[in-house]
Amino acid sequence: MAALREEKHAVEVGVGMMHEVSLAVWRLLGVQQELFTTSIYSPGSPILLPNGARVFNRLVEFLRKQYVRYGFDEVITPTIYKKALWKKSGHLENYSDDMFTVTSSSPARSDTTDNGEEDEYGLKPMNCPGHCLIFASQRRSYRNLPIRYADFSPLHRNEISGALSGLTRVRRFHQDDGHIFCRPIQIEEEIRKTLDFVRIVYSTFKLGPYRLALSTRPADHYIGTAEDWEGAENALKRALDASGQDWAVNEGDGAFYGPKIDIILRDSDGKEHQTATIQLDFQLPKRFELGYQAPAPDYERRGETTTDPAKLATSGTVTPVLIHRAVLGSVERLMALLIEHYDGKWPFWLNPKQVIIMTVNDSEPVVGLAKSTQDILMGRDGSVDSPVVNPPQLAVDIDDSPRSLALKVREARSKGYSVIVTVGPRQVPTGTITVDMPGLESSNTSAQPRQREMDPKDLVQLLRDKANNYH
Amino acid sequence: MAALREEKHAVEVGVGMMHEVSLAVWRLLGVQQELFTTSIYSPGSPILLPNGARVFNRLVEFLRKQYVRYGFDEVITPTIYKKALWKKSGHLENYSDDMFTVTSSSPARSDTTDNGEEDEYGLKPMNCPGHCLIFASQRRSYRNLPIRYADFSPLHRNEISGALSGLTRVRRFHQDDGHIFCRPIQIEEEIRKTLDFVRIVYSTFKLGPYRLALSTRPADHYIGTAEDWEGAENALKRALDASGQDWAVNEGDGAFYGPKIDIILRDSDGKEHQTATIQLDFQLPKRFELGYQAPAPDYERRGETTTDPAKLATSGTVTPVLIHRAVLGSVERLMALLIEHYDGKWPFWLNPKQVIIMTVNDSEPVVGLAKSTQDILMGRDGSVDSPVVNPPQLAVDIDDSPRSLALKVREARSKGYSVIVTVGPRQVPTGTITVDMPGLESSNTSAQPRQREMDPKDLVQLLRDKANNYH
Ligand SMILES: [Zn+2]
Ligand SMILES: [Zn+2]
Repeated sequence: MAALREEKHAVEVGVGMMHEVSLAVWRLLGVQQELFTTSIYSPGSPILLPNGARVFNRLVEFLRKQYVRYGFDEVITPTIYKKALWKKSGHLENYSDDMFTVTSSSPARSDTTDNGEEDEYGLKPMNCPGHCLIFASQRRSYRNLPIRYADFSPLHRNEISGALSGLTRVRRFHQDDGHIFCRPIQIEEEIRKTLDFVRIVYSTFKLGPYRLALSTRPADHYIGTAEDWEGAENALKRALDASGQDWAVNEGDGAFYGPKIDIILRDSDGKEHQTATIQLDFQLPKRFELGYQAPAPDYERRGETTTDPAKLATSGTVTPVLIHRAVLGSVERLMALLIEHYDGKWPFWLNPKQVIIMTVNDSEPVVGLAKSTQDILMGRDGSVDSPVVNPPQLAVDIDDSPRSLALKVREARSKGYSVIVTVGPRQVPTGTITVDMPGLESSNTSAQPRQREMDPKDLVQLLRDKANNYH
Repeated sequence: MAALREEKHAVEVGVGMMHEVSLAVWRLLGVQQELFTTSIYSPGSPILLPNGARVFNRLVEFLRKQYVRYGFDEVITPTIYKKALWKKSGHLENYSDDMFTVTSSSPARSDTTDNGEEDEYGLKPMNCPGHCLIFASQRRSYRNLPIRYADFSPLHRNEISGALSGLTRVRRFHQDDGHIFCRPIQIEEEIRKTLDFVRIVYSTFKLGPYRLALSTRPADHYIGTAEDWEGAENALKRALDASGQDWAVNEGDGAFYGPKIDIILRDSDGKEHQTATIQLDFQLPKRFELGYQAPAPDYERRGETTTDPAKLATSGTVTPVLIHRAVLGSVERLMALLIEHYDGKWPFWLNPKQVIIMTVNDSEPVVGLAKSTQDILMGRDGSVDSPVVNPPQLAVDIDDSPRSLALKVREARSKGYSVIVTVGPRQVPTGTITVDMPGLESSNTSAQPRQREMDPKDLVQLLRDKANNYH
């Protein structure tokens, strides 16, 4: 049963490759931009500092907004599961080296198995078994399908990296993980939608181009019938054709439990990175004995329809197809790619340093105007007797140091702020501010910064709109 | 060193009390409303179903919005730390029974300590040590303080509950955890702000009233000087006075490492629940050797100021005060309290069942109007060639079953939908819809539902506004 090993390979290339490709950059630029740090107490678990958490949360928020269109329902699932679950899923047999074991520190607190041994847990390396439990927790009908679960849980894998020292192993990460449970007849439509999702996401980041690779049935070991595979592969091919993207076949390269599509991104240096994966799985639903009720079950199983009333009169249980898919892959690794891709010039909506307000001098009225401007831009200028309502969630810093404005502006630009606001004594009576938007104006070529005089309330409206539109 | 035990007591009452008070309700109503489920494979770790994850995410989002005012920066920290960290923090000595141990499943993959033993991890029961590591990762000045970190990480505690069966132990939960690192002179202001935060949050949920209890220096065992304690306790008392809430002193009831304030909520049945906690800590910053640079360090340490230029000329390292605080406490437990408090009548902004659209018949044009209305209300009516922009994040269901409208409306009301939309054939030409808002109209007393004819685009604007304002 090389199954899970192969799945591991498929799903994990994304994580593993962080070592080879982007880790140096991630470390260098990531630390420089104060995005993250590491600790000897938790090797392989990056600690996201406020700036890094901001980027991370915006990526998650961006995906949540897209889930509205693509029909994913978020769930929040356990971190540890008893080994019996990992036995059922097959991970214990094939994946246990990569999985951490969790036990009680005190024998008195441990549960015991039927034969009196301590009932150990595995720290989850994947969300799939948890999502299968949710599917199985209710009776399902063909009318309920497809069911699509999304999950941003932290995942742990006890990787060994030969390439780099122990400090750089990545052991904890988050995926924009999703599992689709669908009818055989729905495979094509679901793959189409997923490819569409991938296209929209990567074009929003201005990442790419990418190519698509379809891995098909292996020659020898596979589950199901050759017809099952042919039906599924044809559905995948039709979806790939409809995507309008380049695609190629890796003949016989699929896992024994289903064909898959890899999305391989080409960066500006021509290097390739596997990010998103779409993996069909005929196996896990069987292991978890998942089923849904459908009329004419024999047709249903083959992804066919019938209008014969006699056939439709009988209902039966059919095993759903499971599609594992991640659009970003590992969120941390995608952050590493973005750090490299943007090279310090984050688009405004993702920039952890969006706005800086600098004072012409450090007199009290000028500093006061800077602070009230910050309150307005952050949306915390409302009454303190009621909660903050609908803040624009902008990152806004102040530089009221008694240094020259020219120096402060130069520093702000080198730090990568998208918007530079200056306030001075002549603006105190009107409350207006001077705005320069080096990270937002399309005419970045002009050496002369284009400054404008604005009301802070107009600026917040403009910036909220820019961030909402992923500018 | 009963320290951490006491802290445990303080921080954990929230979690433990779920067993005693609300667990029955949580289970009954929670399962009924399809908020969560449990699994034998992960006892004590509730699995949040789509409806539950919706409520959970809205609570987190609500807090994030308030963090804009209260100055918290979110961080994302590891799940497992080497035992050496838990030794440093004191948890290993005092808290290890409650902590899960994490090891490699394969000996070949484990790190080893200096004396060749396997280097084990502890699964984190609290975020404080991780936040101390972040504080320590950079040089800090008095100008940078206060620094406030927020964290929504999953936490694990291997609790034993005598009260109920093994299935109902709560072992995994999330806190709206926060740690404030501040100068001694800033204690009062930080406590004031935290009490203000608590007031705003509980009044938004319409939970309460609550009382505040200050636990002061124990008679015998405590760290620091009696003057340190007096200074801190006086700061807490001034902040409590300023809060305008009832408060009382539990004389000598504080932990040996600092005084604390408990927030004790009274529910509609008169039962009391401890939810939020504000715990001062003079100890953990010492264990982690945290420090910041300040002029006149002797004054700084006592929370005093000087204008003497000679004193101010010398700078030195001062240990910051650490304030642990959680406003909701355990998010899962607060959800349990809210389930009970609202008893199926969720306010619109938190309701996992916000809107249902029902069809007068199941003809194609009518179902089509229902679907296009759903797309508009969910904000997914834009071009499929660009990402979804600023969707209102409303939960909108459709009931196009061929049953009588009266029956469908009755069912929707009993399920607790806030807004009931009906569409029929006469509305197809105009695209308008009929809206009834039983969960949003203040005049709920009138038996006659107040229906209005609306354009879906006007309804989405109205509902977005209601949700943004926590209605
Ligand atoms: Zn999966
Ligand atoms: Zn703490």
